[in-house]
Amino acid sequence: MIERKDYLQDPVVHIKISKKLTVDQLMQQFKNSGSLGAGRLATACDIYENMISDPECTVFLALSGAVIPAGMRTLVADLIRKRFVDVVVCTGASMVHDAIEAVGGHHYKGSCVVSDHELYKHHIFRIYDVFVTEEDYVRLDYQLSEMYDNIAAKHKGESLSSNEFTWEIGKCLKDPNSILRAAYEENVPIFLPAVRDSEFGFIHWLHSSQQNKKPILQLDAFKDVPTISGICSKSPKNGMVVIGGGVPRNTIQSAALASKKGLDYGVVITMDRPEIGGLSGSTLEEAVSWGKIKGQANQVMVIGDALMVFPFMVASVTERLGEDFRRVPFLERERLLEQRC
Amino acid sequence: MIERKDYLQDPVVHIKISKKLTVDQLMQQFKNSGSLGAGRLATACDIYENMISDPECTVFLALSGAVIPAGMRTLVADLIRKRFVDVVVCTGASMVHDAIEAVGGHHYKGSCVVSDHELYKHHIFRIYDVFVTEEDYVRLDYQLSEMYDNIAAKHKGESLSSNEFTWEIGKCLKDPNSILRAAYEENVPIFLPAVRDSEFGFIHWLHSSQQNKKPILQLDAFKDVPTISGICSKSPKNGMVVIGGGVPRNTIQSAALASKKGLDYGVVITMDRPEIGGLSGSTLEEAVSWGKIKGQANQVMVIGDALMVFPFMVASVTERLGEDFRRVPFLERERLLEQRC
Amino acid sequence: MIERKDYLQDPVVHIKISKKLTVDQLMQQFKNSGSLGAGRLATACDIYENMISDPECTVFLALSGAVIPAGMRTLVADLIRKRFVDVVVCTGASMVHDAIEAVGGHHYKGSCVVSDHELYKHHIFRIYDVFVTEEDYVRLDYQLSEMYDNIAAKHKGESLSSNEFTWEIGKCLKDPNSILRAAYEENVPIFLPAVRDSEFGFIHWLHSSQQNKKPILQLDAFKDVPTISGICSKSPKNGMVVIGGGVPRNTIQSAALASKKGLDYGVVITMDRPEIGGLSGSTLEEAVSWGKIKGQANQVMVIGDALMVFPFMVASVTERLGEDFRRVPFLERERLLEQRC
Amino acid sequence: MIERKDYLQDPVVHIKISKKLTVDQLMQQFKNSGSLGAGRLATACDIYENMISDPECTVFLALSGAVIPAGMRTLVADLIRKRFVDVVVCTGASMVHDAIEAVGGHHYKGSCVVSDHELYKHHIFRIYDVFVTEEDYVRLDYQLSEMYDNIAAKHKGESLSSNEFTWEIGKCLKDPNSILRAAYEENVPIFLPAVRDSEFGFIHWLHSSQQNKKPILQLDAFKDVPTISGICSKSPKNGMVVIGGGVPRNTIQSAALASKKGLDYGVVITMDRPEIGGLSGSTLEEAVSWGKIKGQANQVMVIGDALMVFPFMVASVTERLGEDFRRVPFLERERLLEQRC
Repeated sequence: MIERKDYLQDPVVHIKISKKLTVDQLMQQFKNSGSLGAGRLATACDIYENMISDPECTVFLALSGAVIPAGMRTLVADLIRKRFVDVVVCTGASMVHDAIEAVGGHHYKGSCVVSDHELYKHHIFRIYDVFVTEEDYVRLDYQLSEMYDNIAAKHKGESLSSNEFTWEIGKCLKDPNSILRAAYEENVPIFLPAVRDSEFGFIHWLHSSQQNKKPILQLDAFKDVPTISGICSKSPKNGMVVIGGGVPRNTIQSAALASKKGLDYGVVITMDRPEIGGLSGSTLEEAVSWGKIKGQANQVMVIGDALMVFPFMVASVTERLGEDFRRVPFLERERLLEQRC
Repeated sequence: MIERKDYLQDPVVHIKISKKLTVDQLMQQFKNSGSLGAGRLATACDIYENMISDPECTVFLALSGAVIPAGMRTLVADLIRKRFVDVVVCTGASMVHDAIEAVGGHHYKGSCVVSDHELYKHHIFRIYDVFVTEEDYVRLDYQLSEMYDNIAAKHKGESLSSNEFTWEIGKCLKDPNSILRAAYEENVPIFLPAVRDSEFGFIHWLHSSQQNKKPILQLDAFKDVPTISGICSKSPKNGMVVIGGGVPRNTIQSAALASKKGLDYGVVITMDRPEIGGLSGSTLEEAVSWGKIKGQANQVMVIGDALMVFPFMVASVTERLGEDFRRVPFLERERLLEQRC
Repeated sequence: MIERKDYLQDPVVHIKISKKLTVDQLMQQFKNSGSLGAGRLATACDIYENMISDPECTVFLALSGAVIPAGMRTLVADLIRKRFVDVVVCTGASMVHDAIEAVGGHHYKGSCVVSDHELYKHHIFRIYDVFVTEEDYVRLDYQLSEMYDNIAAKHKGESLSSNEFTWEIGKCLKDPNSILRAAYEENVPIFLPAVRDSEFGFIHWLHSSQQNKKPILQLDAFKDVPTISGICSKSPKNGMVVIGGGVPRNTIQSAALASKKGLDYGVVITMDRPEIGGLSGSTLEEAVSWGKIKGQANQVMVIGDALMVFPFMVASVTERLGEDFRRVPFLERERLLEQRC
Repeated sequence: MIERKDYLQDPVVHIKISKKLTVDQLMQQFKNSGSLGAGRLATACDIYENMISDPECTVFLALSGAVIPAGMRTLVADLIRKRFVDVVVCTGASMVHDAIEAVGGHHYKGSCVVSDHELYKHHIFRIYDVFVTEEDYVRLDYQLSEMYDNIAAKHKGESLSSNEFTWEIGKCLKDPNSILRAAYEENVPIFLPAVRDSEFGFIHWLHSSQQNKKPILQLDAFKDVPTISGICSKSPKNGMVVIGGGVPRNTIQSAALASKKGLDYGVVITMDRPEIGGLSGSTLEEAVSWGKIKGQANQVMVIGDALMVFPFMVASVTERLGEDFRRVPFLERERLLEQRC
């Protein structure tokens, strides 16, 4: 029975900005004062901090949209290196964007008020207000083709899972700022549930049609399902941070369901809304009915542009934990213990 | 050089509703009068009509979101049977929803203002305001498992593409209202670029872990890439109708690019917007810079809920073409000619 | 206590479009089958039909956004003439758009992909994809100035309310398709709670600065508050249809609160969402906490573009009620009875 | 003639967060790296800094939505005191929210997942996830009623403009954190173009109906039009920061048009989009066609929740300018010079 006074516990403390503030000083004000977007963002920071600080939790990051070309490549690579993220699930395109820069290409600050016909004539591709050149794609194509040859030779007669594929690619890249490279070095799996839907698929087609007798890279569409479910299963707790939605969010939630664990923590940053029924905008409450997320989970949806929202979250949590904080995630500790025995 | 009078050619003719109207009578008023959403919807109908009426055009339909459980299952199956759609690209979940009903399950009109914890206890899953029971999933699981056995036995040692997989499933289903069944009967390929990200993937895991020595269904992640690109390539013209966005939209646009054709027609129905950089909300102009859509293509984006928008479009175009209109699509005519020779 | 079977009463009946359909035939399918946007739209039609059919209900229409120039001018005027609307509350701009056409000006079908700098040089103003010329504004300005003189002379020493002002303007206009004219003829009050925020305010400034000794039109900012609250108060039931939101929606809800009635019916068509805290996107449940809408009210929010949604609603309800249906609203019947006595 | 290399000038520099960052340190990274929301937010900070630093510019702030109860009350009052804002245009409700706290009431951190029927029974009103009690409204009502008496006695026979009204109210309030008080003390006008659409209008009704022979507060609906246009007119440059949209944004843009100045700077923070044709979501380019904003103006729209976005902007700009920075705005300097002569 909720009494009237229960509703009236916390008067809003208004935000005060009279001098230089660190990101987390402002975020703490959002927590004390805030409601609406400010309140949700402050809650998201708390939940993300809790996920990272929970020694039993495995942290899944879902990435969709064009956040990598738009400025979050190094950020994500660093999260992997510090193990603020234990598993990545993303679109093929995100890793293609990463690879383009890893092999020497660039993304450029552009504009969305521009003639796309002119860009087409100049062999420049547009991703909202970011530009990328065809020649940078072509450079990647050649290198991917070579990598495919080597991976196929090595794994002759074997079908890889998408996460084995990304580690093999990561192994071939040398750029330390590369997400693929960082994940390979840090033993962080990157799942691409729709790997064919990207330059990786297109190059596979080109490459395999020119192979004559040479072995061809094989990817098994289903092979990563038990792997990701197994990670959920082994980990005492699981949390997810979703940027965007789509297939990456669904893959994590399905793994949580398939493993009968249900997520313990959930942060979703999106501009999608529930009313049209898509998964990307669906509430985390809806996920409770499925058992994808626990009823008592710490969870919040932040309605906003991830390019703004996520760096503020990361800066705030980094400030709280200190720059030297390096997490040893649950599954790795288990492995270390096993090795020691 | 645009002169002042060029801007002022068409005074808005205001919508007039004084009596019973057919859907297309209202839509024609949207065309004459309209601007904003009405104008875009009328344009979308015209473009869809043009796609269907163009004897050289192959029509691709991208499906994402929960439109199938929410009421569009029969509609899509009928579009396939009348060949208003030649190729479907969708999420795994959409076809799982179709299959659930095909094997005797149901979706129920529910509510979004409900306790998800209660639903969880009742083994009822929520998709916004649609309910579906766990037992209907389990019924499907058993049947899928059996189908997998049969398909695996038939295709021993072979890796299927996602479109081969959906035809095999469609062959096993008997419900004439099933999308999978209709597609199988009508020779319409259904591509599932992220097939693992659905009950199809989960059942594969369960199934293959219990197989002992029996053959296991194999799906090749990349095998459908040349198939869909080949369809674009052979077809003199290509058009797409997108419901939602995500991987299905990207897959079609990539096929148009890979085949160096570029789309001639494009209709996108979505609530996503371009500003956050995701593919789902990106403009069709942006696709021009990539060569995914032709600069002079007929294209429009309708910002709206597909459950409202798409049936209005289909009703309007059906009215225009007459109920007996049955399209023989380009690629089928080609096949018929070849057979005759 | 809700039992499991209570959740599973109504299997979704899928939409079927095999032949020409009237608008309401499709809408009835939305009702039977539907959920998501289709379900909400069908519910909105039912509620609007109920409002109109309820002999005790006064129907308030809130208008904001550019729906009048974009094609809904005649539609709204006709709703007034058939008394499907008893009270209008709108932005000043909406009635300026109406008046521009009433004095011979036009709105033109334009485009949103255009150089606004070019338009500026051509003295063409843009409202998304609608154009309107400066000369049409100037023509209105001259006529308004004259009307202001006459109204001021007639109401010397008196301050008008916004609804008295709109009737005076309506009296001066002769165009039968004009909303202002229709409202004047039909005795339907039009409230402009932010009347100054429009050409009406600008012309008042110009006009009053040139008046020398002549009387100046006076508008009392507060005078319409008791009038609109009084209408709510006298009417046994009240319903609102909101297009957009903003000040017009708030004004109606506040009148329902001030009169201690609370609305009995509510339909809101908007693209705004609740998360950012604005009134326009706030749920109708939120309005229950204030007493602006009754807890047991029939209410629904349709997330969509009003230029698409509202004409479909009006066509559907018109079809149901028949083209000769003419409503005699509660307050008018009261007046007729009083006159008879 | 744009050459290919012109498009490819600025490679994206990726965001790097390895240690504690001040808000502006992160914002500077957004500027260097960024695109999408990060890029727009960084641009918005630059434009706001430029507005404040431009000795010839008058800064208009438009406020709509529930940002005051949700935590931005002190922030806005401080902006007024530091003269980072010279003119405020807002909804009546925003100033009612301010006044409620000024007379001792509170807003409370609440929730949006709550029974509104329960809240209604407890006389608690909900504004998304903020609560406010009826008794705090009643307390304000009594005090407003008294203020109205005093203002009416003082201005007998005179009709006030909305900005004169807000100064009179501000004079009666003693809370230094009050926006109304700060504006009164700092000589900053607050315009309420829809003043009737708020508790100010409701109390006026109650109050005037109980006045017997006592003078009644009179507000002239049109009187503030020449005042705000006059401010634009006298100021060499004008800039606006819009939170939300609606009538407040339109009022500023119309003043810029009426004064034939056109805005030199524009920042809009909103979740509204242009496609449905409303003013709130309309682009600043569209405003160029009207002459409301100059073609060469510095302008940007940030798509986001103002409760998150605006504090980050203010913190960033405060850090840049230093905490002791106090602006003497153009019009005040003019006044000081005149007084000195």
